[in-house]
Amino acid sequence: MTVLSDLLASVFERGANAAKRGDWSRRPVKELVDALVSAQGEISGSLLAEQILARYRAEDDPAKLEFFHHLAGAMNVDPAAARSALDAYESEPSRASYRAFLTATEPPRQELIRRLNRMPGATGALVEMRADLLRLGRGVPELEALDLDFRHLFTSWFNRGFLVLRRITWDTPANVLEKIIAYEAVHAIDSWDDLRRRVQPEDRRCFAFFHPAMPDEPLIFVEVALTRGIPGAVQPLLAEGREALGASAADTAVFYSISNCQSGLAGMSFGNSLIKQVAGDLSGELPNITRFVTLSPIPGLMSWIDAEGINAQDADLPGLLPGLAAYYLLNAKGRGTAPLDPVARFHLGNGAIIHALHSDADLSEKGGAQSGGMMVNYLYDLRRTAERHEAFAASGAIAATSGVKSLAASGQKTLAARKEKTAEKNTASKSAKGT
Amino acid sequence: MTVLSDLLASVFERGANAAKRGDWSRRPVKELVDALVSAQGEISGSLLAEQILARYRAEDDPAKLEFFHHLAGAMNVDPAAARSALDAYESEPSRASYRAFLTATEPPRQELIRRLNRMPGATGALVEMRADLLRLGRGVPELEALDLDFRHLFTSWFNRGFLVLRRITWDTPANVLEKIIAYEAVHAIDSWDDLRRRVQPEDRRCFAFFHPAMPDEPLIFVEVALTRGIPGAVQPLLAEGREALGASAADTAVFYSISNCQSGLAGMSFGNSLIKQVAGDLSGELPNITRFVTLSPIPGLMSWIDAEGINAQDADLPGLLPGLAAYYLLNAKGRGTAPLDPVARFHLGNGAIIHALHSDADLSEKGGAQSGGMMVNYLYDLRRTAERHEAFAASGAIAATSGVKSLAASGQKTLAARKEKTAEKNTASKSAKGT
Amino acid sequence: MTVLSDLLASVFERGANAAKRGDWSRRPVKELVDALVSAQGEISGSLLAEQILARYRAEDDPAKLEFFHHLAGAMNVDPAAARSALDAYESEPSRASYRAFLTATEPPRQELIRRLNRMPGATGALVEMRADLLRLGRGVPELEALDLDFRHLFTSWFNRGFLVLRRITWDTPANVLEKIIAYEAVHAIDSWDDLRRRVQPEDRRCFAFFHPAMPDEPLIFVEVALTRGIPGAVQPLLAEGREALGASAADTAVFYSISNCQSGLAGMSFGNSLIKQVAGDLSGELPNITRFVTLSPIPGLMSWIDAEGINAQDADLPGLLPGLAAYYLLNAKGRGTAPLDPVARFHLGNGAIIHALHSDADLSEKGGAQSGGMMVNYLYDLRRTAERHEAFAASGAIAATSGVKSLAASGQKTLAARKEKTAEKNTASKSAKGT
Amino acid sequence: MTVLSDLLASVFERGANAAKRGDWSRRPVKELVDALVSAQGEISGSLLAEQILARYRAEDDPAKLEFFHHLAGAMNVDPAAARSALDAYESEPSRASYRAFLTATEPPRQELIRRLNRMPGATGALVEMRADLLRLGRGVPELEALDLDFRHLFTSWFNRGFLVLRRITWDTPANVLEKIIAYEAVHAIDSWDDLRRRVQPEDRRCFAFFHPAMPDEPLIFVEVALTRGIPGAVQPLLAEGREALGASAADTAVFYSISNCQSGLAGMSFGNSLIKQVAGDLSGELPNITRFVTLSPIPGLMSWIDAEGINAQDADLPGLLPGLAAYYLLNAKGRGTAPLDPVARFHLGNGAIIHALHSDADLSEKGGAQSGGMMVNYLYDLRRTAERHEAFAASGAIAATSGVKSLAASGQKTLAARKEKTAEKNTASKSAKGT
Repeated sequence: MTVLSDLLASVFERGANAAKRGDWSRRPVKELVDALVSAQGEISGSLLAEQILARYRAEDDPAKLEFFHHLAGAMNVDPAAARSALDAYESEPSRASYRAFLTATEPPRQELIRRLNRMPGATGALVEMRADLLRLGRGVPELEALDLDFRHLFTSWFNRGFLVLRRITWDTPANVLEKIIAYEAVHAIDSWDDLRRRVQPEDRRCFAFFHPAMPDEPLIFVEVALTRGIPGAVQPLLAEGREALGASAADTAVFYSISNCQSGLAGMSFGNSLIKQVAGDLSGELPNITRFVTLSPIPGLMSWIDAEGINAQDADLPGLLPGLAAYYLLNAKGRGTAPLDPVARFHLGNGAIIHALHSDADLSEKGGAQSGGMMVNYLYDLRRTAERHEAFAASGAIAATSGVKSLAASGQKTLAARKEKTAEKNTASKSAKGT
Repeated sequence: MTVLSDLLASVFERGANAAKRGDWSRRPVKELVDALVSAQGEISGSLLAEQILARYRAEDDPAKLEFFHHLAGAMNVDPAAARSALDAYESEPSRASYRAFLTATEPPRQELIRRLNRMPGATGALVEMRADLLRLGRGVPELEALDLDFRHLFTSWFNRGFLVLRRITWDTPANVLEKIIAYEAVHAIDSWDDLRRRVQPEDRRCFAFFHPAMPDEPLIFVEVALTRGIPGAVQPLLAEGREALGASAADTAVFYSISNCQSGLAGMSFGNSLIKQVAGDLSGELPNITRFVTLSPIPGLMSWIDAEGINAQDADLPGLLPGLAAYYLLNAKGRGTAPLDPVARFHLGNGAIIHALHSDADLSEKGGAQSGGMMVNYLYDLRRTAERHEAFAASGAIAATSGVKSLAASGQKTLAARKEKTAEKNTASKSAKGT
Repeated sequence: MTVLSDLLASVFERGANAAKRGDWSRRPVKELVDALVSAQGEISGSLLAEQILARYRAEDDPAKLEFFHHLAGAMNVDPAAARSALDAYESEPSRASYRAFLTATEPPRQELIRRLNRMPGATGALVEMRADLLRLGRGVPELEALDLDFRHLFTSWFNRGFLVLRRITWDTPANVLEKIIAYEAVHAIDSWDDLRRRVQPEDRRCFAFFHPAMPDEPLIFVEVALTRGIPGAVQPLLAEGREALGASAADTAVFYSISNCQSGLAGMSFGNSLIKQVAGDLSGELPNITRFVTLSPIPGLMSWIDAEGINAQDADLPGLLPGLAAYYLLNAKGRGTAPLDPVARFHLGNGAIIHALHSDADLSEKGGAQSGGMMVNYLYDLRRTAERHEAFAASGAIAATSGVKSLAASGQKTLAARKEKTAEKNTASKSAKGT
Repeated sequence: MTVLSDLLASVFERGANAAKRGDWSRRPVKELVDALVSAQGEISGSLLAEQILARYRAEDDPAKLEFFHHLAGAMNVDPAAARSALDAYESEPSRASYRAFLTATEPPRQELIRRLNRMPGATGALVEMRADLLRLGRGVPELEALDLDFRHLFTSWFNRGFLVLRRITWDTPANVLEKIIAYEAVHAIDSWDDLRRRVQPEDRRCFAFFHPAMPDEPLIFVEVALTRGIPGAVQPLLAEGREALGASAADTAVFYSISNCQSGLAGMSFGNSLIKQVAGDLSGELPNITRFVTLSPIPGLMSWIDAEGINAQDADLPGLLPGLAAYYLLNAKGRGTAPLDPVARFHLGNGAIIHALHSDADLSEKGGAQSGGMMVNYLYDLRRTAERHEAFAASGAIAATSGVKSLAASGQKTLAARKEKTAEKNTASKSAKGT
């Protein structure tokens, strides 16, 4: 009797006697997983899938790691089989040989993940499973490879065409709102009243993407302030007791916070679509809104300044910060031509332009520590984002206003002067030592 | 300037001037397709995808064929690249080499189809595209291979976990109901009044699976009659003016019609899940319902009888039909051990048992022509479907009641007698000729 | 033991034994009604109300009449009690004496109807009850008086603030759509396809008022065609196979059919609100729509012409009809200064202006018989409807364009000439006789 | 030119020029009110109604009082007209004379209130208006009389048949949940987390009645705990960190808090219906629930004890409280035969029975002050509530278990003993004084 038929027998033949289902729990999850991949019946599969997900969820990290290693090892692609299927297909291409090729080059774990997804509610559980994998598998090559299979399937499942944009308001169910509170990653929401200030007033908007299979779980959300003119500081936007602007009086939409919600969806980029759809929808609804900007942190600024050898306590720093920040955004590089600053990388990659920089713009502790209080507006001109995106993607060209460019030039001088001074000092100190 | 940036320029830089978009229409769809696969921006991609789908939809069959051949040729997997990626991965497995392997063994057309799906509404368009492909590509190996890529993606997208079961009632929107009328494939619905008789009375149910991205398009639906006892004829179930049974008085749920709605989803089997979920839901809602049976056609019966050399006009046939039908269902084989009859193949594959056969059960013209008026009840005993499914899958074992088995034995005798008689006749005729 | 406690005992003490409820059926409805009015408990009242409505529904017309006579007689106001309560209140006004006054001047049947309304679904049943009353009580003074109590309560319940405007589309549930088909009173809808032509194309709209307590029952609906220019004939609007106009290309909204759905709500005038809300909503949604007109029948025209002594078969009539129709609309009076034509009365009372008249505009049999094929556009200029309504209400003043007024003048001449001719003829004939 | 036409002119003829609407604000609300009652057009009425409600809302209390006095005076019934209409109807009953009678005996302010209700959203505004009236008019006879007109109309509008029962869960929109927090009147909800503990766990339920015209405003709500056995203390039900019971494990539903939400609906009694519908629905959903009890405060206990001359600080009191509480509930009378305790009056009037009493059951400050920590279970046996309600309504008979009755007997003895002692003391003291 196979594992599967044994399992099935225990469930079906003994009927409603749920106590018997306990038998499954004596078998290792590995066996259940193998049985699921080889099962032919959709129904038996559903029961197995349910069982596997429940068992997985209850396990501790070492057991989860073991589970992932089973997928990464026993359920990996078989290179020999892949090669022979490839040869067969190349020598005689046909529906049959192509099918054999597709099968042989897809690791069985992809089919496993698809089958796990058959139960209602499974999609969310699989997203959490990948979050575990990312956490536990970091630096382990075969687990990082396994992640690519999750990612491959998630890219299909979370295709933009399947996502639903919903506005978040004070009328939204509390179980969704509490997730907005929990997931806000940029400017923390500290209470339900704080949340209400961000979603209820006429001049505040919040939008999130949802997937139909996870209807209560926002995937990503953006908070928007409708303003007259482009704001240069974030605390006034969040202030208690401020007076709301009539929506029709606003001329600018400010994206002041974008938060990804699901660590299990890392690497799926919903932000670009979200910003552009929200911008499009808002300009349809409120024709007076003619500018779409962000008010963004510059999270890498202070550590870059530090790395450049400038002391954060330097009394002159406040006056120098705007220039340094502009220089940093335009010139500090990470991998290849990509900006070092992750937020800059995101918005410039979407085709935005660096519009303006502001001192004393984020007075929170975090804002001080990360960026000395500096913030930046990225501006989305929808007529030009595609062109700018293309230029950025092709050559790393960064769009910036002339004001920002001048600032960057002054920043460059500051840097050069500092280095010179440091060099002199070093020379001096060496000379001194030399004497 | 690349095709893409040229296209984009024409759209974005000249802004709202929609007339300019006409430029795209001078470029062949092929070029658009190539541009889409190589595009990096999600937004540019969306516009291209929209354009491609609109252009495709407007084309005639030869142009569509050309489009498919482009996908099948230029966008096929590259065996050399696949082999070298496989070698690299095998010699040094890592996240990077595995990613390269996955990329190289997936034909670019899969990515194309995923990108086409980014626009709202695209999923339905792609299902129709595959319907075209199945129609136009039949017998063309490279197009049949291309279809496997569609099928691969659709299997992911139409995963059971993403489908939604909805009851169809007289309160259902008319735009959905008209599709039920159009798609009914077993017992045609000839008017809105006929439809109402199948969804409104207390003892009639209809359920359909939907996909969230195609919310107005049923994928498959089943019509159910709640009855006392197992019915042996279909026309009384559909009769105008019949009196409805109180739902709580019923002890049997009869699945009398199951119809697939989307030819572009051919090969995705939703039927098994549908039957079992509906059976499960009904037994929860109406505990008096203890039997779940079908009242099914035997579509291949008369042509098989004809192939066996028995004349459909034979005066004795009506009396012999039940035996022959039972024999046919139990013994006539198609590929391998699979039953020749497609409906039998479906229900037996789901783990049903052949419960009973009925003469004069379908008096429609179609029913007479296909099966001489015979119909069959397949019974779903949910406690045993898994076991029967496994047995059927493993060895082709067909479950049948003893009554059906006896009938089949008598049918076998009839066949043998007929063959003998024919043999005698042939001998006689030869002898006669021989003289 | 009172009737009530007896009834209650039979229901409650014997518990779930529903068979016992049969006891109620031996008591005349009258007794149940009296018990309901005197019941203090809300729950006992609910059960009684349910029973009364069920019993009423099952009765034939004579029994219903008897029921109404009971309400009209035994449950009428008591003039002596009313007078003494009035005296008491006048001599010493207080909360208590005012309450006694309100109670004494309200007939108990109003309280009865309110209590009947406590059950879910009762509102619709009471609307049907009033439909019966209007039908059976016509010309019977005490039943006509009883109707005023229904009407009084319905005016409260169907207050404009409680009604909900819903657009009717091809996505509307079939159970609502079938009522649109059934209730269309102006231009009959002859099939589901005909209905679809009126609700699905981009340039067709349909809106209905609903009451929350009767969510599947439209109270009144209007059908609208969006057109370029003001149409002069109805059949082209309803034609099969016509090409739809893009909604944004339209400059005119044509209300071509308004139908009341509930005869039990006769006398409640929802039409004015409906037209104005729809006009307001459409101008918000489609700013290009700048004209709101009707294309209306002139139902009383031919019978008025006949009454004026003009033969419907007269060969000259077609040429004379426009003038006569204009004269009829502007000058033929019913009660007081009100127009004789009911449709004119409605739209002019709403503040519309007679905009234009059209020959050969309704080629249906009904259109020919009622109005010789003539139709009329009433135009709603929302900036002036209030003023026109006031003028009409104050003095019967009818707004019409100068074109329509000229036509009416020619119609007046026609009439005068005809009368002269008739007079001559009569004189001649008398003279002839006289000889 | 009338006030109305003047107003209308300012709105309509000058069209969209909303600035002109300011003209209205110079006229006193009284004039607008008179104009609304005499207006014939529904639309003009709507604009007036909107204006009146907006103006009213912005006024201070003295201006509101003036408004109410205008309604109470100028818009009161005219006794002379009422008398003559009554005479005319009595001498010659007809539809016309009855209509005249109805009109003359209804004060014009009722029609005013109905007309104010025509605007969307007006119902809630009128409920608030009555809340003002109750607050400002207390003790002013003519305003108390005016309130009867509001109450008369509200009784029609908030008829049980129009109310909708909705379950309140953690998925309910936050704007409704915040009202639950605000309106909880029995056991205050001190945070969103506290709220979540009352609506999210499997063994907690909350239900509210809503009116369709005030969809975000609960009218009344009840909080329910599902338990095993009947609980004798409230704090454990509300405790943070308690473990939830599986809903199917519960055998008892405990109504531990019922709160009316709208002071403007004072005197409309929704509570009885709410309890009985919730009890009915729960027994349908969870057949294991066989007992429906409350866990109720005894708000009048301590002040009654005080009035009986027993010192709240008396060291013996805790031991005596159960008996005294039982005696109080059974014997302390308010108006007529009605129990003095308002909560007892409510539940006994609904047909409940006093089931049990508990010491140390409400340890909150409020619970100590009002009832010395005592609480009581009222039990609803749906098969007997009607009978008990009738007995209570007829003679004030109070249903109680024998245990409660024994307690009451001991309470009676306590009281007698105390009175005797007091009498002795008084005599002693008098004697002492007498010497």
